[in-house]
Amino acid sequence: MTRALHDIATGTLFGVALNYQGLLHQRLAEFDQPPYKQAPVKPVLFIKTPNTRNVHQGDVVYPAGVEHLQPGPALGVVIAKDASRVSAADALAYVAGYTIVNEFSLPEDSYYRPAVKAKCRDGFCALGPTLVPVDAIADPHQLTLKLFVNDELVQENTTANLVRGIPQLIAELSEFMTLHAGDVLITGTPEGRVDVRPGDRVDVDITGLGRLTNRIVAE
Amino acid sequence: MTRALHDIATGTLFGVALNYQGLLHQRLAEFDQPPYKQAPVKPVLFIKTPNTRNVHQGDVVYPAGVEHLQPGPALGVVIAKDASRVSAADALAYVAGYTIVNEFSLPEDSYYRPAVKAKCRDGFCALGPTLVPVDAIADPHQLTLKLFVNDELVQENTTANLVRGIPQLIAELSEFMTLHAGDVLITGTPEGRVDVRPGDRVDVDITGLGRLTNRIVAE
Repeated sequence: MTRALHDIATGTLFGVALNYQGLLHQRLAEFDQPPYKQAPVKPVLFIKTPNTRNVHQGDVVYPAGVEHLQPGPALGVVIAKDASRVSAADALAYVAGYTIVNEFSLPEDSYYRPAVKAKCRDGFCALGPTLVPVDAIADPHQLTLKLFVNDELVQENTTANLVRGIPQLIAELSEFMTLHAGDVLITGTPEGRVDVRPGDRVDVDITGLGRLTNRIVAE
Repeated sequence: MTRALHDIATGTLFGVALNYQGLLHQRLAEFDQPPYKQAPVKPVLFIKTPNTRNVHQGDVVYPAGVEHLQPGPALGVVIAKDASRVSAADALAYVAGYTIVNEFSLPEDSYYRPAVKAKCRDGFCALGPTLVPVDAIADPHQLTLKLFVNDELVQENTTANLVRGIPQLIAELSEFMTLHAGDVLITGTPEGRVDVRPGDRVDVDITGLGRLTNRIVAE
C-alpha cells in the first residue's frame, strides 16, 4: 500500500522565489536599483508555515480587505531522508517523489524576500492530490504545468524553464541547512500570475502528477 | 509533573525583527531609502526552521567561511492553544509560558526581511532551559535580558523596550494567521549585537527564566 502524501510530506514547506527563467528576466531591471544593486546569486527562499497547509479539493479563503489573491502553480519535491551537503549528482536519491503545489500569495512589491504576511495565510499552500514516486517520473525537468481558473487555461509553462533544477536546489540548500525527511521544496512559480476571486475554481495540472483542485471562498 | 519545554514548544518558531525601540531608531534612516521609503508599519516576521532547534548546553556550529556570527538574546513566548483573531486584551490566555531564546544569525544587510540562509543554519535557535508558566511572571514587559560571552556582560536590555508587547504581537499575528499550540514567538533581539567565535561560551539570562548556555564550536 502506498502511504498517503500528507502522511509523508509533514515537514517544512520551502518556497523558492524567482526560479523560472521568464520571471527572473522580467525582474532583472529591478535588481539594478538600491538596496540590492544586483540580481540574487543564490536561491531566494521563503517558508510556507504549517498553518498554510491545504489539500486537494480544500477551500482557500479569500481574505477580507485584500485587493488581489494569486495562485502559484509549482512542482513540489518531497524529501525522503535527511540531506546535509548532498552533491547534485546524489540529490535524487534523497527524493521520495513529486506532487503538485498551489502556493497562494498576496502580490508583493519585492520578490527578494517574500513576506510572511503575504505568503502565510491559513490554507495558502495546497498540496496534492497524491505523492508520485520519484521513479515514476522519467525527467522532472520536462513537465508541463498548467493553471486553470474555472476551466480556462490561464498559465502554462514547463519545468524545463527552472533556473535551478531539482538536483542543484537540493545541493545548494543542503550545503547550509539540513533538509529533513518529509520536507517539501516548492520549486518555483512561473511568471504570469493571475488574480482569482471568491467563487473561482482553480486547478493545477502537471504532467504525470494529476490535477490539484481548490475553490476560492469568501471569508 | 511539569511537561518539559521541548515537549510543548514543538511548533513554528516565529521571529520578530526590529522589535526593540533602540534598534528601530538606529535603523529608521535606512527606511527613507528605496525601495521601502518608510519604516515598517506591521511586525516584520521571519521563521526559524525546525533544523535550527537547539537546547540548553547544546553546541552551536560556527559555519566555515563566514566572517561573523551573532547571538540574539530574546524572550520566547510559547503559545498554549490555537489563536485566531485574538484581541490584545485576551492574548495572555493563549500563552503557556515563557522561555529564553538565543536566536543566532549571520549579520545581514537588510533588517526588513531576514534571509533564510542567514537565520536558518542547523542549531541556530537555542531554547531553554525550561518553560516558565505564564502565571509565574508578574509582568513580562519588565524583564532584564543579559547576554554574556565568556562571563563578560556584552548586551543588556529590558522587555520594557519592546516596540510591540506580547499582547499586541499575538493580536497582530493572529489577525492574519492562526497561531498553533506549541508555536513560539521570539519577541525580538535588542540592538548591540556582538560577534562570537569558536570556543566562546554564550549565556543568556532573563529575569525569572534562568540562564540559557551554549558553546560555539568550529565546524
